[in-house]
Amino acid sequence: MHRKKYNVAILGATGAVGSELMSLLIERDFPVADLKLLASPKSTGKTLSFNGQDLVIAPVTPESFNGIDIVLASAGASVSKEWAAIAVSKGAVVIDNSSAFRQDPKVPLVVPEVNPQALDHHQGIIANPNCTTILMNLAVYPLHKMKPVKRIVAATYQSVSGAGARAMDELIEQSQAILNNQEPKAEILPYPIGFNLFLHNSPMDDQGYCAEEMKMVNETRKIFDYPDIQITATCVRVPVLRAHSEAINIEFSEPFSIVTAKELLSKAPGVELIEDWSRQYFPMPIAASGKDNVLVGRIRQDISHPNCIELWLCGDQIRKGAALNAVQIAEVLIDRNLI
Amino acid sequence: MHRKKYNVAILGATGAVGSELMSLLIERDFPVADLKLLASPKSTGKTLSFNGQDLVIAPVTPESFNGIDIVLASAGASVSKEWAAIAVSKGAVVIDNSSAFRQDPKVPLVVPEVNPQALDHHQGIIANPNCTTILMNLAVYPLHKMKPVKRIVAATYQSVSGAGARAMDELIEQSQAILNNQEPKAEILPYPIGFNLFLHNSPMDDQGYCAEEMKMVNETRKIFDYPDIQITATCVRVPVLRAHSEAINIEFSEPFSIVTAKELLSKAPGVELIEDWSRQYFPMPIAASGKDNVLVGRIRQDISHPNCIELWLCGDQIRKGAALNAVQIAEVLIDRNLI
Repeated sequence: MHRKKYNVAILGATGAVGSELMSLLIERDFPVADLKLLASPKSTGKTLSFNGQDLVIAPVTPESFNGIDIVLASAGASVSKEWAAIAVSKGAVVIDNSSAFRQDPKVPLVVPEVNPQALDHHQGIIANPNCTTILMNLAVYPLHKMKPVKRIVAATYQSVSGAGARAMDELIEQSQAILNNQEPKAEILPYPIGFNLFLHNSPMDDQGYCAEEMKMVNETRKIFDYPDIQITATCVRVPVLRAHSEAINIEFSEPFSIVTAKELLSKAPGVELIEDWSRQYFPMPIAASGKDNVLVGRIRQDISHPNCIELWLCGDQIRKGAALNAVQIAEVLIDRNLI
Repeated sequence: MHRKKYNVAILGATGAVGSELMSLLIERDFPVADLKLLASPKSTGKTLSFNGQDLVIAPVTPESFNGIDIVLASAGASVSKEWAAIAVSKGAVVIDNSSAFRQDPKVPLVVPEVNPQALDHHQGIIANPNCTTILMNLAVYPLHKMKPVKRIVAATYQSVSGAGARAMDELIEQSQAILNNQEPKAEILPYPIGFNLFLHNSPMDDQGYCAEEMKMVNETRKIFDYPDIQITATCVRVPVLRAHSEAINIEFSEPFSIVTAKELLSKAPGVELIEDWSRQYFPMPIAASGKDNVLVGRIRQDISHPNCIELWLCGDQIRKGAALNAVQIAEVLIDRNLI
């Protein structure tokens, strides 16, 4: 059988997510006809290896999108706002990893395991949710289908990869400096992250919530198509390289069965249950790094409230939290003839 | 005026808490007549410097407590169980940093800023609460006096100092190994902690809660003398050296004023409010390390529940979380003529 192939452009090819996108296209045998690498002018002319070929990075121009079927965009919100409509006007579908269009009612916001049906009437731009939201939704949605979720109290432990490849370098450099009794230099992140942690530095709103936290609130409501869900979150950056962890307390609208909850999570797509109670082995960032699934474990009846459940999860921020989810969206579009 | 002086013994002098106790006795000009350093036989004969004198470490024997007024014990629960009653029988007051006696109804469990009155009828042994409990209680108790607290959902970010001086060395050694592309060796903690994190490794109960979490539940109930408070916690070890952080969601039994809550916390003893919203500067472990006060900040009305407040805190695990609280208990005993 002859599989149709697609011309793909990666916008933001030199970032942490960009390079993961390239790996995933190969690993998942994505039907790529031609791959175009686009990035900011400072990377123009550099090459990146893809499938044994050296591809030259080009700057973005309107002509970049001629003949492109799929744009995987991960160069930030301002770049996406500038180029997405142009790419769509040239006939491409844009799967955008930035926050630019996530709350646009015309733009589907999709976690393929949760709401693939939202892709059915897309208009060219599809938004990839924020990493913390994707990871949380994979674990919460199967439970929400069991009993409607009333409220979530979340606390995150977020790796520096969420701030990009340079923040990962900064954690390494700062850690080495501290071990050498030198002052750590904070240039990418606002405060030293080596052997330290701090509240997420995204912009704060009038309610005292940062943008990262409000993404968990607003994106979950849109993805679940359930505006009634109440969510509060405390997002924290920790000195970990590339997997996020989350402590999630979920209140159902009515009593629930912990046995059923565990059973549902053990079968949930995109979820791997990691619970070895005797060894006290549960999800950890180093175990989640490089994995496709979000690792979920230590599922407990909350002793403080009969309708609440506690769970813990770790997921690769760059993969399922960003690049993998985007590639999976492209795969669903192909499977459903939506491209 | 002639101040009375006291003969003090430190049991567990070579540990992280032991050395902090020695520093605090000097810093706070504690009225020490004679200081005796006790530790396990393997440290016998070693010396530690105190106030310009080299003190020789002795092994513990029943005679160790002859003439001692105050024992500051930080050598673990089994050592405290073995020696506390003997020390009391010799006329000493034992301030015990271990979990050995915390739930004993005859033993006061005291955070001096919260329940100093519990010392009034002590019977020789006084328990120092667990570090996570002390830090949380300093921030929650002023709010509990404003409106009774119904429920707390806590997530912790705990430094390795909670597992002792050797765990601190292990974090440093593992971090260096990882930076050198070598395998990190986990000997003290069960899993690698360098650039990683994991759920607290204290023993787990049948409900799926670890001992560290149940300390937050049971000790808070005893310290507040309020068994109705409902608490759930997720305790996590993070690659930080010596200050713990906690994300605390508090539900009051009735509506509350966020303005009053902030005002109360700005005046609360043992609390320092750190909230620079424009710079997004809030408590961080590196800022809390070496500090006496627990740093509290980012106090928000929880958007998911009208009766809930969110707050964030960091506190030095070795100081206020252990050694300082013990010395403060001794100071209250002296002030109130309870010794």
